[in-house]
Amino acid sequence: MNLEPLTPEFRQKVLDSWDRQKFMNYLNAEMIDVRPGFCEIHLPYSEDLTQQHGYFHAGVISTIADNAAGYASFSLMEETSSILTVEFKLNLMSPGDGEKLVARANVLKSGRTLTVCRADVFAVKDGKEKLCAAAQSTLIQLHNQSDQ
Amino acid sequence: MNLEPLTPEFRQKVLDSWDRQKFMNYLNAEMIDVRPGFCEIHLPYSEDLTQQHGYFHAGVISTIADNAAGYASFSLMEETSSILTVEFKLNLMSPGDGEKLVARANVLKSGRTLTVCRADVFAVKDGKEKLCAAAQSTLIQLHNQSDQ
Amino acid sequence: MNLEPLTPEFRQKVLDSWDRQKFMNYLNAEMIDVRPGFCEIHLPYSEDLTQQHGYFHAGVISTIADNAAGYASFSLMEETSSILTVEFKLNLMSPGDGEKLVARANVLKSGRTLTVCRADVFAVKDGKEKLCAAAQSTLIQLHNQSDQ
Amino acid sequence: MNLEPLTPEFRQKVLDSWDRQKFMNYLNAEMIDVRPGFCEIHLPYSEDLTQQHGYFHAGVISTIADNAAGYASFSLMEETSSILTVEFKLNLMSPGDGEKLVARANVLKSGRTLTVCRADVFAVKDGKEKLCAAAQSTLIQLHNQSDQ
Repeated sequence: MNLEPLTPEFRQKVLDSWDRQKFMNYLNAEMIDVRPGFCEIHLPYSEDLTQQHGYFHAGVISTIADNAAGYASFSLMEETSSILTVEFKLNLMSPGDGEKLVARANVLKSGRTLTVCRADVFAVKDGKEKLCAAAQSTLIQLHNQSDQ
Repeated sequence: MNLEPLTPEFRQKVLDSWDRQKFMNYLNAEMIDVRPGFCEIHLPYSEDLTQQHGYFHAGVISTIADNAAGYASFSLMEETSSILTVEFKLNLMSPGDGEKLVARANVLKSGRTLTVCRADVFAVKDGKEKLCAAAQSTLIQLHNQSDQ
Repeated sequence: MNLEPLTPEFRQKVLDSWDRQKFMNYLNAEMIDVRPGFCEIHLPYSEDLTQQHGYFHAGVISTIADNAAGYASFSLMEETSSILTVEFKLNLMSPGDGEKLVARANVLKSGRTLTVCRADVFAVKDGKEKLCAAAQSTLIQLHNQSDQ
Repeated sequence: MNLEPLTPEFRQKVLDSWDRQKFMNYLNAEMIDVRPGFCEIHLPYSEDLTQQHGYFHAGVISTIADNAAGYASFSLMEETSSILTVEFKLNLMSPGDGEKLVARANVLKSGRTLTVCRADVFAVKDGKEKLCAAAQSTLIQLHNQSDQ
């Protein structure tokens, strides 16, 4: 696996794309870190984001898992490419119970067309992280189709 | 597969649970139909729900796919049970491009503990449905743990 | 979705590829039907194919689910292309208990690069089919890379 | 996550179950290692196990990924329980090209009912490992249903 970014501007490219995602702003998610093949996203608790028991909704958990995987993958793609999620699979292992969610994604395989990524989501309660979900994702690089 | 509801109150049980999900209200999603082993959810377009190209965000698509599967499954569970999503897998096949999303889920197998469900999400543009995502989900019935 | 085969020789192309898969012969699997976007595979019971309780092994079930999805997809691809499975997800719903397994796959979306397919596997006992597994798969068309 | 085995006989329990799987013997697979929450399986190359290009068949790869996840999970279950795979998802990342396959599985979460596991499969060529597939699996513990 090549974890060398194909463009020195990979970080700016990711942040620009992130800023254009209105839904992430609507959720109040924060892009915390992006490195070649890695991405971390945080999401503070809000009542608006809850399911029937008052925990973070599975849809919210899947959103940041998918996004972390997407930008970890995008960090390794060409400057002139855009990215789409092909599919992902998410296991929910414990309630999204806490003051914050943290999603971290790592690229397993970065190919010319397809990238495979794993993402973990942790619920942070009283400052302590607990694994609440795990995802495995496939993403596709669309060559010569700018993300903008 | 038994598509007979175990409680005559299955519809009310589903609607009560739905109403307690603040995130579905935050997205402005509508529960359109619930029958034994089936559920349909609609979600009108809003800029707040978009990804970087202005289409419905994959996280939004996964949220209603997961919820439709959950309530299709819940419709067949006991009155005194609650439900959790164990895991789901979602393929994104075309952009969420349209004035509305429609998610429809059907139960494949309803067991005492586990339920398996398939859900399809359609983007409705100019009144015409196009398949944009397909999910396959596993859900668990928590006996004697009321959803409330 | 276009269910028109891109080559009139799609059936022969699929059968040629099938015949080169030594593992399918080792399992004694039979290609029963292939039509544009559809494939059916049968597998008679043998003790060699069992897990610890004497039923068909999950690995056997996943093999024919994956193959049925692959050839349903391949039936719609170009004559000069080969195919690879990108990923699949399989739910096992009841034991593979019977004299035969039957896998049937249908294409959901056939794109230029990626194809999405669903496959169901049935255990046939005393002539009666019971759904034992359900899969959802992603496949990729490798253009100008002959399957031979 | 509790990685303490619930029975001191976990290793023997796993090996006994493994020995009853005739399919693993038919494939000539070897159980190499089992520790609490971990399992490793090897599979030497044979022409019988190949797909149309002469590499290990995806069905073979999925079989040992599923089995490694199953026994990694089973190692943490009670002596009087049996285990079933609920579902798994497998990404195929590079051809199964080599003299041997190696599958390694690690438990992510071991619950009273459900266990979540990740498994990686490597193709070993000229003694060098290359990641060829990655799986994420859900397994269920059937209490008081002996595996024998």
